[in-house]
Amino acid sequence: MSETRSEISQLGEFGLIDRISKNFTLQNKSSIKGIGDDAAVIDTGDDYLLISTDMLVEGIHFDLAYMPLQHLGYKAVAVNVSDIAAMNGKAEQITVSIALTNRFSVEAIDALYQGIKAACTNYKVDLVGGDTTSSTSGLIISISVTGRVKKDKVAYRNGAKANDIICVTGDLGAAFMGLQVLVREKEVYIADPNMQPDLEKYEYLVSRQLRPDARTEIIFDLEEAGVKPTSMIDVSDGLASELFHISKNSGVGIRIFEDKIPVDQVTFETAIDFKLDPITCALNGGEDYELLFTIEQSDYEKIKNHPDIHSIGYMHDKKDQNIMLSKQGTVVPLQAQGWNHFTNDPQT
Amino acid sequence: MSETRSEISQLGEFGLIDRISKNFTLQNKSSIKGIGDDAAVIDTGDDYLLISTDMLVEGIHFDLAYMPLQHLGYKAVAVNVSDIAAMNGKAEQITVSIALTNRFSVEAIDALYQGIKAACTNYKVDLVGGDTTSSTSGLIISISVTGRVKKDKVAYRNGAKANDIICVTGDLGAAFMGLQVLVREKEVYIADPNMQPDLEKYEYLVSRQLRPDARTEIIFDLEEAGVKPTSMIDVSDGLASELFHISKNSGVGIRIFEDKIPVDQVTFETAIDFKLDPITCALNGGEDYELLFTIEQSDYEKIKNHPDIHSIGYMHDKKDQNIMLSKQGTVVPLQAQGWNHFTNDPQT
Repeated sequence: MSETRSEISQLGEFGLIDRISKNFTLQNKSSIKGIGDDAAVIDTGDDYLLISTDMLVEGIHFDLAYMPLQHLGYKAVAVNVSDIAAMNGKAEQITVSIALTNRFSVEAIDALYQGIKAACTNYKVDLVGGDTTSSTSGLIISISVTGRVKKDKVAYRNGAKANDIICVTGDLGAAFMGLQVLVREKEVYIADPNMQPDLEKYEYLVSRQLRPDARTEIIFDLEEAGVKPTSMIDVSDGLASELFHISKNSGVGIRIFEDKIPVDQVTFETAIDFKLDPITCALNGGEDYELLFTIEQSDYEKIKNHPDIHSIGYMHDKKDQNIMLSKQGTVVPLQAQGWNHFTNDPQT
Repeated sequence: MSETRSEISQLGEFGLIDRISKNFTLQNKSSIKGIGDDAAVIDTGDDYLLISTDMLVEGIHFDLAYMPLQHLGYKAVAVNVSDIAAMNGKAEQITVSIALTNRFSVEAIDALYQGIKAACTNYKVDLVGGDTTSSTSGLIISISVTGRVKKDKVAYRNGAKANDIICVTGDLGAAFMGLQVLVREKEVYIADPNMQPDLEKYEYLVSRQLRPDARTEIIFDLEEAGVKPTSMIDVSDGLASELFHISKNSGVGIRIFEDKIPVDQVTFETAIDFKLDPITCALNGGEDYELLFTIEQSDYEKIKNHPDIHSIGYMHDKKDQNIMLSKQGTVVPLQAQGWNHFTNDPQT
């Protein structure tokens, strides 16, 4: 090894992924799509098989002080199922690998797998394998998911065209605000363990953080409406970051409207209480696991009355102009912040 | 959670897997085989898709004091490819997830992925996805592999019949003795850092530990010979442990001959030097990543001249009698020791 030492934090997660993936080229004809989308795509004959994987590390992705193991198990499955949905596919199988110290009892493992089972039941996926081992520090969960999509229905990040309408499901920023509430309550609890947290007001936000759901029903709804998204991604790192992925991969620009971004009332009010801008929380908060997709204008009529799909803007042909029109009518350049776990701070 | 606390170490890895898997039943018709074999089996139409996963944790599965990162990357892929071979299949894709602290530089990650790439090239598999994140302690690698097998060629652990011949490839116990050599040399180095380890004599053993290879060519050889194993497993936990898996899953007994167990001369001599019984190392050492399989007697002629396939015994109909006939002609009951990472000691 050379004596040069470069820090991973300087590259960031996306830089590291780019550095790794540029050295690998696909050699099997069954490998249709490798690194760079929500899931890899494998040709299995009639259909495409989708495969995605996520690793959750204690102390980085979750804090067991406020994350019950049952919720953690559920969430670990949901975020993987969400990646398959983001390819317009349906998840069918998962493998679950865990590493843990002897701090965890058999009962703790039971709780974790109860959550995994609840998610398997809800999403109709089968646990088909995995690995269990000990760790030297904390709990690590690595889940891989396989799914299926008809070949003509697969939605990549790179299919958006100028004039396509940008849609997002549900509402944004709630999971991020839920995390802020939990972090504050933990600090209150550490300061005074007799203090009981009053989370009732924040129930929606906290549930979005602790027990997010993959929007699998949207995939069925789109199919039923006869709409194939031209591009799709799930919102894990924040709306802005995901919009940039679509823009970069599709080679077209983004134009969204601030007043169209769906933010729940409780998210809005709590953000103000925390002296945060609600729209910034929606743009950069992350962990919403909503679906962000583009559709052809001719498909708009088919989904415009869907109660949970919101059109927030459109694509245009200037690929370097990713902008938001503010409520005041000013043009705000979008910034893809995302998350850099290597510094534990949002990337700036 | 109830107040009862049960320790994972009392269950052991296999006990924990049994406890987890009994709560999960398969619900998708594409899920052909779930937990309990070297890989899960998914129906994709013409063929079966195979999927397996392994997690390697620093301080548990490897020690970077003697495991170069490049070898670690290679080995992490090889052990997964071996699981696909053990289903009589061919690996095609992998996903690689890593968690690591900022102790690791970009150059260290490069070295790890150079090893992963070397393995991908050697085994003709594509890296199609993964996850990169930080950890709070050390390096964790989780790899999932997908492979393919014709439906009538898949080899499970449960197909062995009485009178089938038990075959194993290569030689056994070398990886275990390689580990003993490395651990001793590390102790010598800690005692006196000026002492240069003399590993030349142990080159074969050390390479079997640090850079094992999956026996993918055996799968081609069997296909060419027109032999479909009635059962198959790869030797990761030690010959005895794997024989028990075949016996338990197939419902038939094992009878092997001590003098037929393939042990390399260097393994034999080094074991004696270390005051270990060479056959015990072969039976319980683990990490050989050789293939253990059973064939019908009528197929024996087709493989008996293969230079790297050794017949070591046969199956019989008394499923509770798993025995070895010693060189002296005495009957020795086999014991499945395997490894219990939760205590870091061989299970007894």
